[in-house]
Amino acid sequence: MAPRPAPADKFSFGLWTVGWQARDPFGDATRPELDPVEAVHRLAELGAYGVTFHDDDLVPFGADATARDGHIARFRKALDETGLVTPMVTTNLFTHPIFKDGGFTSNDRQVRRYALRKVLRNVDLAAELGARTFVMWGGREGAEYDVAKDVQAALDRYREAVDLLCQYVVDRGYDLRFAIEPKPNEPRGDILLPTIGHALAFISTLEHPELVGLNPEVGHEQMAGLNYAHGIAQALWQGKLFHLDLNGQRGIKYDQDLVFGHGDLLNAFALVDLLEHGGPDGGLGYDGPRHFDYKPSRTEDIAGVWASAEANMRTYLLLKERAAAFRADPEVAEALAASRVAELATPTLNPGEGHAELLADRSAFEELDVEAVAARGYGFVRLNQLAVEHVLGAR
Amino acid sequence: MAPRPAPADKFSFGLWTVGWQARDPFGDATRPELDPVEAVHRLAELGAYGVTFHDDDLVPFGADATARDGHIARFRKALDETGLVTPMVTTNLFTHPIFKDGGFTSNDRQVRRYALRKVLRNVDLAAELGARTFVMWGGREGAEYDVAKDVQAALDRYREAVDLLCQYVVDRGYDLRFAIEPKPNEPRGDILLPTIGHALAFISTLEHPELVGLNPEVGHEQMAGLNYAHGIAQALWQGKLFHLDLNGQRGIKYDQDLVFGHGDLLNAFALVDLLEHGGPDGGLGYDGPRHFDYKPSRTEDIAGVWASAEANMRTYLLLKERAAAFRADPEVAEALAASRVAELATPTLNPGEGHAELLADRSAFEELDVEAVAARGYGFVRLNQLAVEHVLGAR
Amino acid sequence: MAPRPAPADKFSFGLWTVGWQARDPFGDATRPELDPVEAVHRLAELGAYGVTFHDDDLVPFGADATARDGHIARFRKALDETGLVTPMVTTNLFTHPIFKDGGFTSNDRQVRRYALRKVLRNVDLAAELGARTFVMWGGREGAEYDVAKDVQAALDRYREAVDLLCQYVVDRGYDLRFAIEPKPNEPRGDILLPTIGHALAFISTLEHPELVGLNPEVGHEQMAGLNYAHGIAQALWQGKLFHLDLNGQRGIKYDQDLVFGHGDLLNAFALVDLLEHGGPDGGLGYDGPRHFDYKPSRTEDIAGVWASAEANMRTYLLLKERAAAFRADPEVAEALAASRVAELATPTLNPGEGHAELLADRSAFEELDVEAVAARGYGFVRLNQLAVEHVLGAR
Amino acid sequence: MAPRPAPADKFSFGLWTVGWQARDPFGDATRPELDPVEAVHRLAELGAYGVTFHDDDLVPFGADATARDGHIARFRKALDETGLVTPMVTTNLFTHPIFKDGGFTSNDRQVRRYALRKVLRNVDLAAELGARTFVMWGGREGAEYDVAKDVQAALDRYREAVDLLCQYVVDRGYDLRFAIEPKPNEPRGDILLPTIGHALAFISTLEHPELVGLNPEVGHEQMAGLNYAHGIAQALWQGKLFHLDLNGQRGIKYDQDLVFGHGDLLNAFALVDLLEHGGPDGGLGYDGPRHFDYKPSRTEDIAGVWASAEANMRTYLLLKERAAAFRADPEVAEALAASRVAELATPTLNPGEGHAELLADRSAFEELDVEAVAARGYGFVRLNQLAVEHVLGAR
Repeated sequence: MAPRPAPADKFSFGLWTVGWQARDPFGDATRPELDPVEAVHRLAELGAYGVTFHDDDLVPFGADATARDGHIARFRKALDETGLVTPMVTTNLFTHPIFKDGGFTSNDRQVRRYALRKVLRNVDLAAELGARTFVMWGGREGAEYDVAKDVQAALDRYREAVDLLCQYVVDRGYDLRFAIEPKPNEPRGDILLPTIGHALAFISTLEHPELVGLNPEVGHEQMAGLNYAHGIAQALWQGKLFHLDLNGQRGIKYDQDLVFGHGDLLNAFALVDLLEHGGPDGGLGYDGPRHFDYKPSRTEDIAGVWASAEANMRTYLLLKERAAAFRADPEVAEALAASRVAELATPTLNPGEGHAELLADRSAFEELDVEAVAARGYGFVRLNQLAVEHVLGAR
Repeated sequence: MAPRPAPADKFSFGLWTVGWQARDPFGDATRPELDPVEAVHRLAELGAYGVTFHDDDLVPFGADATARDGHIARFRKALDETGLVTPMVTTNLFTHPIFKDGGFTSNDRQVRRYALRKVLRNVDLAAELGARTFVMWGGREGAEYDVAKDVQAALDRYREAVDLLCQYVVDRGYDLRFAIEPKPNEPRGDILLPTIGHALAFISTLEHPELVGLNPEVGHEQMAGLNYAHGIAQALWQGKLFHLDLNGQRGIKYDQDLVFGHGDLLNAFALVDLLEHGGPDGGLGYDGPRHFDYKPSRTEDIAGVWASAEANMRTYLLLKERAAAFRADPEVAEALAASRVAELATPTLNPGEGHAELLADRSAFEELDVEAVAARGYGFVRLNQLAVEHVLGAR
Repeated sequence: MAPRPAPADKFSFGLWTVGWQARDPFGDATRPELDPVEAVHRLAELGAYGVTFHDDDLVPFGADATARDGHIARFRKALDETGLVTPMVTTNLFTHPIFKDGGFTSNDRQVRRYALRKVLRNVDLAAELGARTFVMWGGREGAEYDVAKDVQAALDRYREAVDLLCQYVVDRGYDLRFAIEPKPNEPRGDILLPTIGHALAFISTLEHPELVGLNPEVGHEQMAGLNYAHGIAQALWQGKLFHLDLNGQRGIKYDQDLVFGHGDLLNAFALVDLLEHGGPDGGLGYDGPRHFDYKPSRTEDIAGVWASAEANMRTYLLLKERAAAFRADPEVAEALAASRVAELATPTLNPGEGHAELLADRSAFEELDVEAVAARGYGFVRLNQLAVEHVLGAR
Repeated sequence: MAPRPAPADKFSFGLWTVGWQARDPFGDATRPELDPVEAVHRLAELGAYGVTFHDDDLVPFGADATARDGHIARFRKALDETGLVTPMVTTNLFTHPIFKDGGFTSNDRQVRRYALRKVLRNVDLAAELGARTFVMWGGREGAEYDVAKDVQAALDRYREAVDLLCQYVVDRGYDLRFAIEPKPNEPRGDILLPTIGHALAFISTLEHPELVGLNPEVGHEQMAGLNYAHGIAQALWQGKLFHLDLNGQRGIKYDQDLVFGHGDLLNAFALVDLLEHGGPDGGLGYDGPRHFDYKPSRTEDIAGVWASAEANMRTYLLLKERAAAFRADPEVAEALAASRVAELATPTLNPGEGHAELLADRSAFEELDVEAVAARGYGFVRLNQLAVEHVLGAR
């Protein structure tokens, strides 16, 4: 039986997930609005520890200050009543028509200035609510037409925007970091910073790179055919896994936002193993929120919404159990050794060795029995089969 | 009529391109071996200025020193006779079975040491032949199975290898830089540093980042559904476009290596425009070799090989003409202005403006007529249609 | 300069194309509603000959009979004033929440019966307006979850529905045929009858296969990585190209519905060549409407809408000119001959030959010089380069 | 623990699978040749019941009659010793350079005639060995360039070839049926009959459609982003699932030929459930061979080859257990009912009902409470989560 989620598991959900009304490009809403206060209470009952939101999820776009304060006060009260936290807040620079060519990188400078102002206000709210991570998904920063966007200028403007926001956080003394969420396409034909890699590279050019990391989403990397667990490993390796979005995707197609594990189950297993064990020899890989950014399918009523929320957490916990059993299995240990997985952690060079010493080592080249080394099998298929059988609960 | 290629166009080809014997996963070779010396002569006749190679293209794997010297001497003679240069040399860490789990990141440490030695020897040859760029395509650095590769350790080893090579170049005083060639998959299920972005991010962690840049290939980015011209723009923006591989690909599938322009013709136009004009307002974007890394289709005989080599250059030159005409067209200039493409080069902030000043500017937010700004059309479709009509030679 | 569209070109548009308000999964509408009457007048001015619609485009879902008649009367008046025809009508079984699990194949039998009734009413309207083709895009007929849909039962129900509709048309004596529009996914995770092939196969099982053909859409096939021109050729070959939807798509991703030619330009050229010339030796391949099913990008205002409508037709006409020039070029004729393209039209067997005679022909096997035949080059790259240069207007 | 494979499970393997020497587009062979006789013995020991082959796997291309007879005799002896059967034989029209533009649809008529002769000889062998299915994968029947292939003529030739082969089987009285194996691309840019659907449609045009069915491969459909279980369901529904190829594929990329279950595990579960239970209410869906067409990864030595062969069967059997438990779980039964999965098997029309009666049923349309029906949830996510938990062995 599946273990029950508890706050110690650090599961969090976006208000926009359970609150999605199921409007899609070809169809009208199938569910009524969900009061954020009800969402907070129900998620708490299900075992979540946190809830996140876009500014516009909580306060309708364009609401005046009084209405805004009222919405925020009700939400804080719900948090207080349930003990839920708000580990992350994010911004909506994509729904309103003013952002149709992007926020930070719109060709229209008035839009860019407006976008910065909208985000600055939201950063204040994030800090006020105690969020430690501010996610920025630049879903409209992009183009359909190559001639319509000067990509180098767009990256200049993107950097200008993030630099300004970082300076703001520094000057205000907020304990808040930014996390960029890459996506390759949809709603734009091509989105800037399309993958984990492009966003990491961009961050390396910032004035305050230490304040900016990533919020990679399962489906977004998989929409480019990339291996999500590999991407997360590179983000961890560069010290940039500030937050993450868990969900499910069935290959290269439109953004599905399925329940975690309802897509590529084997890669989900590898991910949980990585997050929980940090790699073959490691300890904890990531201790932040396990945040679900999914959509309850359009076919579901409100009961289905809550069932789907619960499903995300159950699958995560089951995969965590499977990963622990995999790591504890002596046959797996033996297979990992046969595959020399841990040998990769040994530096290629000997201690103190440089190119001169390496060139002098005839055993490395001139005297190596190349054919014998080439003939060694790696035993990867057997190792993977052990993983599959653990996923299947068959060992 | 298509203009004729000339050395000033800086067209170069890999020996392995025209020399490909057309062995594929399901079929035997359809063409005989091609002598590198003949390739040099024929490419020179066709108007190329440079030729490049993998060590194993020129010198069979495992050849002894005497044989090696003979192969190199014949090749140098051909260069001298034709005036062709060798702007780039690359390494083969993928064909021999010893590299079946990679070179720099094989789980097997003996393989990693052997790979480093093989590359060091090849770096010497590159320097000796006057190459300025040393390309590294890590096509076997990757995995099919998530549990079989510790990606973080692999990135440690990758970095260790590149750091060693850079130190070697520094210590020897070679005027040579490295260029990493990303690819998402094939021949491995998932390759490390799968896109331009991941490789740029990796470079930012090196000891000598100034010595390492990119060699992005059209088809490799398009195999991940990414926009090649966008990727090149980010590489340029980060100062890392050291070299590039031009070819054609028809969408997300196996690596096709078609002739340049025989894939996504509109993106090829955008690319040539970017390389030649650097963007909407710019000058030259890139002045290195226009290097073709393509495969003459398996259906072709040797006459088809040379026809295909020529086709790459003709299409490039035709697109260059189209791009020049596009930039010179007053209606295009007017459409670019209507689309506010150049406005993106204007900083979002006023000179000297920081967050305090921006927050104080009520015209940017409180008093902005949001609906009016939102209603403005960008005219992108009209602009793109002008580009399409220029590509079609219809204006 | 681009030729001007005229009614003889048989260009038609869906009301929902120019009328799209640009609401997408991540954003609100950016354009106001467009009156169908205005759309008819503007399309006529631009040179279109026809206009098409979903029932709900013309008459809001759930409108009463009086309102319905009023909408239809205004529309007919606009047709009369402009001379535009309605060659095709289609049905909307996807927008309203009742169709969230499909229309003809919803698990809910009440929905299926309702869907049939909605379509029957719409078939009457189509006949009344003189449409000759009734398109059915079953965008909601599918599933996200394999266990949630009995695909064989769903195909039974799909057949039951189409059989009933055919019987209705027969019994009423309508001069109307059905055209199924395949799509692989979006809005459902997997849609039934996902490609041209699957729909052709399904049609072969119907009671009135002669009444049912296809309406293939460029982007829908390309979303599965398939070659649209190849698919159209198979549909023609099976006598089933009843109608088609032209637009643009940039590879395997969400459904983009770009302007025709703004995606894969080379395949668009091949398509126009096929439609206009029917193949290397043929005459006209298809003489029905050239119907555009695209969306003016969300960044566009109403001026951009009309510019985009015009762009579709201009690109088609330019490609038609390019295809005619390609077919007329003596060098192309020579290259086609060298590639033995027309030789494929010669039967493999001699007249009257059966397996016995073939087995007795030693020249076909025992005495064939296999290596010599294998060595012949096909010259395909040169031929394709000629096509590329014609597309570029360079010949 | 995983159950042990036995002949009753009807597992079969191609000689080319365990015998693959691991030559790929970028690398040389990593394993020595495997004697077919050894393969037969080892597969028998592992629990397989059948072995299949291409003509060229057993008899090298171009071998003379004496050599051919010797190879066949040795192979038959191994079958006799082990009790293994040969349920299927297939043909190789792709490896030799003569087939570089295809076999049945090469532009070169001499090649087409040669291909027919090669296949006729192989059909005799298949019949002689008691095979009941003759598979034809037309991997080279296709094109890279749209202008280089007249697709309609190619389909004519394809049909001509298959019609001839069927006539041959009829005339000889062989108890043998043909099974076409679709694939979208690789090694050709676009392959004819790219999916299950296209091949089914083609079959409907044949002279002997009853003799021709399909051999769909997991990875081939998934390379087009299509749902393999859906495709198999349509093939079953049309009575055309004559044989199938099981393996694993991780999304849209090059053909990976991984072990069954090492790709999309959830779809593999759905497939096994379909084959074993025929759908939600059904009995056995398919009782032919469970044939594995996979490649032991290039990293493996011969021990890894046999481990990978075993892995295919173990995963199948484990999924069969999971599917049986899923079907037996009362909570699943309840969830299936809540999702109205079985309701789809009830005809939409009442017994004897036609369009007139349906139009007269006001409860179906005029009096239906559309909003109430629309509001019903389908509970699909909960149902899928039950499937996921069964796959995980957690229930």
